[in-house]
Amino acid sequence: MIKVGIVGGTGYTGVELMRLLAQHPGVELMAVTSRGEAGVAVADVFPNLRGRVDLKFTDPAKSPLSDCDVVFFATPNGIAMRQAPALLDSGARVIDLAADFRIKDLALWEKWYGMPHANADLVGQAVYGLPEVNRAQIRGANLVANPGCYPTAVQLGFLPLIDAGCVDIAHLIADAKSGVTGAGRKEELPYLFAEASDNFKAYAVAGHRHLPEIRQGLGLVAGEEVGLTFVPHLTPLIRGIHATLYARVTRDVDFQALYERRYHDEPFVDVLPAGSHPDTRSVRAANTCRIAVHRPQGGDTLVILSVIDNLVKGAAGQAVQNMNLMFGCDECAGLTQIPVLP
Amino acid sequence: MIKVGIVGGTGYTGVELMRLLAQHPGVELMAVTSRGEAGVAVADVFPNLRGRVDLKFTDPAKSPLSDCDVVFFATPNGIAMRQAPALLDSGARVIDLAADFRIKDLALWEKWYGMPHANADLVGQAVYGLPEVNRAQIRGANLVANPGCYPTAVQLGFLPLIDAGCVDIAHLIADAKSGVTGAGRKEELPYLFAEASDNFKAYAVAGHRHLPEIRQGLGLVAGEEVGLTFVPHLTPLIRGIHATLYARVTRDVDFQALYERRYHDEPFVDVLPAGSHPDTRSVRAANTCRIAVHRPQGGDTLVILSVIDNLVKGAAGQAVQNMNLMFGCDECAGLTQIPVLP
Amino acid sequence: MIKVGIVGGTGYTGVELMRLLAQHPGVELMAVTSRGEAGVAVADVFPNLRGRVDLKFTDPAKSPLSDCDVVFFATPNGIAMRQAPALLDSGARVIDLAADFRIKDLALWEKWYGMPHANADLVGQAVYGLPEVNRAQIRGANLVANPGCYPTAVQLGFLPLIDAGCVDIAHLIADAKSGVTGAGRKEELPYLFAEASDNFKAYAVAGHRHLPEIRQGLGLVAGEEVGLTFVPHLTPLIRGIHATLYARVTRDVDFQALYERRYHDEPFVDVLPAGSHPDTRSVRAANTCRIAVHRPQGGDTLVILSVIDNLVKGAAGQAVQNMNLMFGCDECAGLTQIPVLP
Amino acid sequence: MIKVGIVGGTGYTGVELMRLLAQHPGVELMAVTSRGEAGVAVADVFPNLRGRVDLKFTDPAKSPLSDCDVVFFATPNGIAMRQAPALLDSGARVIDLAADFRIKDLALWEKWYGMPHANADLVGQAVYGLPEVNRAQIRGANLVANPGCYPTAVQLGFLPLIDAGCVDIAHLIADAKSGVTGAGRKEELPYLFAEASDNFKAYAVAGHRHLPEIRQGLGLVAGEEVGLTFVPHLTPLIRGIHATLYARVTRDVDFQALYERRYHDEPFVDVLPAGSHPDTRSVRAANTCRIAVHRPQGGDTLVILSVIDNLVKGAAGQAVQNMNLMFGCDECAGLTQIPVLP
Repeated sequence: MIKVGIVGGTGYTGVELMRLLAQHPGVELMAVTSRGEAGVAVADVFPNLRGRVDLKFTDPAKSPLSDCDVVFFATPNGIAMRQAPALLDSGARVIDLAADFRIKDLALWEKWYGMPHANADLVGQAVYGLPEVNRAQIRGANLVANPGCYPTAVQLGFLPLIDAGCVDIAHLIADAKSGVTGAGRKEELPYLFAEASDNFKAYAVAGHRHLPEIRQGLGLVAGEEVGLTFVPHLTPLIRGIHATLYARVTRDVDFQALYERRYHDEPFVDVLPAGSHPDTRSVRAANTCRIAVHRPQGGDTLVILSVIDNLVKGAAGQAVQNMNLMFGCDECAGLTQIPVLP
Repeated sequence: MIKVGIVGGTGYTGVELMRLLAQHPGVELMAVTSRGEAGVAVADVFPNLRGRVDLKFTDPAKSPLSDCDVVFFATPNGIAMRQAPALLDSGARVIDLAADFRIKDLALWEKWYGMPHANADLVGQAVYGLPEVNRAQIRGANLVANPGCYPTAVQLGFLPLIDAGCVDIAHLIADAKSGVTGAGRKEELPYLFAEASDNFKAYAVAGHRHLPEIRQGLGLVAGEEVGLTFVPHLTPLIRGIHATLYARVTRDVDFQALYERRYHDEPFVDVLPAGSHPDTRSVRAANTCRIAVHRPQGGDTLVILSVIDNLVKGAAGQAVQNMNLMFGCDECAGLTQIPVLP
Repeated sequence: MIKVGIVGGTGYTGVELMRLLAQHPGVELMAVTSRGEAGVAVADVFPNLRGRVDLKFTDPAKSPLSDCDVVFFATPNGIAMRQAPALLDSGARVIDLAADFRIKDLALWEKWYGMPHANADLVGQAVYGLPEVNRAQIRGANLVANPGCYPTAVQLGFLPLIDAGCVDIAHLIADAKSGVTGAGRKEELPYLFAEASDNFKAYAVAGHRHLPEIRQGLGLVAGEEVGLTFVPHLTPLIRGIHATLYARVTRDVDFQALYERRYHDEPFVDVLPAGSHPDTRSVRAANTCRIAVHRPQGGDTLVILSVIDNLVKGAAGQAVQNMNLMFGCDECAGLTQIPVLP
Repeated sequence: MIKVGIVGGTGYTGVELMRLLAQHPGVELMAVTSRGEAGVAVADVFPNLRGRVDLKFTDPAKSPLSDCDVVFFATPNGIAMRQAPALLDSGARVIDLAADFRIKDLALWEKWYGMPHANADLVGQAVYGLPEVNRAQIRGANLVANPGCYPTAVQLGFLPLIDAGCVDIAHLIADAKSGVTGAGRKEELPYLFAEASDNFKAYAVAGHRHLPEIRQGLGLVAGEEVGLTFVPHLTPLIRGIHATLYARVTRDVDFQALYERRYHDEPFVDVLPAGSHPDTRSVRAANTCRIAVHRPQGGDTLVILSVIDNLVKGAAGQAVQNMNLMFGCDECAGLTQIPVLP
């Protein structure tokens, strides 16, 4: 059994990690930490876990994290970069669901995240945990930077085109829509039911933190810088990201076949038949990305539709997938739930 | 492996049955029928099942239902009473998720359901599939009448009080709120998003078909007729029933202890600590009923809160629970998913 | 023109007051105060008011409130009781949308609101602003305690029965469902979209602050204490209250006629035809209460359905109605908008 | 008073027309027709109109439409092209809210709408009712083709750029999101609450009927054909369209100033301050289009955000605005309601 700890278990990625790990056949959940809720039963905060997770939240300082085989950080940005080193030294492996180790260019990271980085070395060692790109490196990693939710949906959508070098990579457009849990379990005005319900809006059009992460990931595949316009939107969904991607064709290929080939062996990427329109709910509560490829009126603009559950393939599910790779488990272990529809 | 057929698989109870059965370790799904969608892949209608259910819908007349060990009817009322006899004769067992076999008094059934009943004998043989009341009889049953969604939530909420004989059973009140899937996958005006969203209303206050079913169930436990005012409400939820139950105390007991004792060994009924308020989402997509017991200001009116997912404990999940009992499986087999929250 | 000030304009009752007052033919809006947002344009906080309300929020200490003819308090509880005296002394009249002057029994108020009351005299002078009960007194009032949202829906629903003395007033039941704006514009966890959406729950079953207010109102009409079980529920609606009321018949009358007669001349109470089920959206954004009267199966339990928009007839609209009465305007001035459906 | 008739009053544009017209100071509503609901009180179908619209639906053949000054068609496509001629002959003016007269190229219309057109002459005479482009012609028109909802949001968003000739008009992109009422009051599966709620999806990516309408409108302004990729999405909103528009800069200008200048005198187009993100709810139930202009990171891709209420500026409100122009009323008459937020 893999001994698992979670740092910062009171957010939405925390409860989702617990939902998945409690159903994982090869995992023993050792500790879930929270400064604010230390001493409170996990199931009192998250009643869906009653009878399934019998732990109490514990103070991080008093938690047996260093005895764990792997520790998930489901914390705000800036925590893992300070706490991961000691855990790694003690032999635990670390998967950070926040952004601390995602961006290799430290200056860029500091600009977008508004704080100095605490550990440049670890950024260098960390493996970016997108299995569809980095599976082999993840297997050997001690520290995994779990991708952001938008970056997962957008990169999986664009990757085959970049790989194949058949679109204008200087002018990519990603129009992305996210459910409200994408913002975390934050007591802030825009995320109130009475503000977000029956409403739709773009935000951060001037620049969103996931932009440099996507550009880095696509740029590594392209072997050169990519130009991307990224517009996120707040959508009255609990869960779900729908990325609508636009790219100008520079070289004609069979795009449907390209996508089917690229993802043929991927257990968690499903290329839909030509002409499809994926619903976000078709992946609700599951670790799946579904993609549809369109070329409207046979023109020179491709439209790629990519959907994920932001809390699963966009966060906790992908983290468990990474853990499975790191520990040599079946990559799908604990991730076989069928999406909940309706 | 239990060979399973589903008659009428295109509704919400149909897709939910498939979601649960496809994850059940002891089941082989043989056929899912639909007149309207015969020949169409199940996964084309329900994309959450892509890669998990590889069947096509088949015409009922051409389906191998008589080779099945058990056939679920996820059909409108009035179908199972005509088709079940032949299946039972061929040795299959039958679980009807509609109302054909729920009411023992045929005249009463015909009054509320507006059609003549086709098979009085089977009504007599059928076992009402509420395991918390009829577990032993269900084990030996060939024909199970799966309870309605409201009746499940309301009966589980009232049962300990009726058992204990400590409330005025002539004046029970059940104020029940249901998500929109309770109406089925029907193309009718009141269930449109633009009608049901950001709206709340009572319906069928003059009389709802679940009223006689609840009165029958409670009356059998009480040993006499019960008086019940039952008011259902259409609520902007996808899934979920919240029953708020009111009963006048006639004899003082420790009501919290009464409920905890009654449901102590029940795997799917969870009595919450005193003072709790169950969320419907705390049982989303799971086969659990959560109950809280209140006595406001120590007065003589009890308030019982009972929540279920109408598609799971209120329909497909309870049907699988009944199947498990009928075939000697672990009662929880295929029903261990943790509720999805948020 | 009536010169109007609003204290505490950044909440939902504040924005709703401004929406209504900006369309009122006889009102000049002089000042809207907010400590936190002083100096910010009202339309920057509430973009629906762009081009319609050109004020900035001002610091209450620097605002010309004492030059106003009437000042609305759209503040948390405990503010108006401190600030109203000076305004009243300066000749302004006051309408408090919070609870400071609603309960005549000071000890009871202090118990439920958890603070000492600052001004017993004013509680005595204040008129409870439910026009359907107190129209004449409101006309002459200098200080009006605007009713709570639940108390408005519940009292209007029960009043004709209490008036007529034909039900058991010791055992009334009010099962009430409210949209999320009922909680105010508060950055608190239960009101997040991801918590309140696709979810339904009861709360405060042990006791809610609106219970003593309702009991006081009904008791005054009855001429004796009434017994009430009041269970509020949080519902995934932006706006709307649906009260489902239960009462045991003690004397037979024509209940439909009773209600129609009682509210015949009321401009804002609409008794629906027998057998109706009012939608909350049928009063969305309007100052109307719609009521339906049911007696299921001719039994001895009446079911009354009463719906309002909690922000209009349950708060800001009723406050404007009270202002109209106090200043001799047409009672409907500024309140003639047709409900928005869908 | 303008005598007004409505053909086909049972849909969402019908009820919205009635809501607006019943509050219009210069209108007398003479008749609202419906084959299916003839004889039924309008207020029985739309309870928000109780006490405000006292008409019954009437059979179109028996309705005094030819006595009206203006007749609105709130019908499916293909009705107005057959019935408008007789009304025009009798002296009534006609505003069609469907698509019969929107596309000047008949062959194109027939291709996208899948039926032969019944009246080529009228297509030639009809004025496209987008006041921000065609105000003068609308004033003199007898027959107005009221624009589609997406075309209104998209054209108002792109117009200043096309006017100024400063973007690549061969490669425009419109990523548009609509609330569910955009589909009409249709009893079809995708529009059920349980299908559309907590879900997001693109549709008609291969081609939507509003594409040729938008291309025609923008092409007329450009003086040449425009290339447009248009992707509509079904969004869990009751009302609202959010168009996110992308255009490549070919000539540098002050884009914010360009928009402010273009719409300076427009009563129903509101250009927001630079950096804004309009909410759809900021125009809920009002005839306003709000637009924000962005140029992320100073790159060569502009992002324009344009929001309307699809039932108001996208349908009924714009139709009333057109009526006001045609009859020499104040253009804003009956259209001064403040948006409902929250």
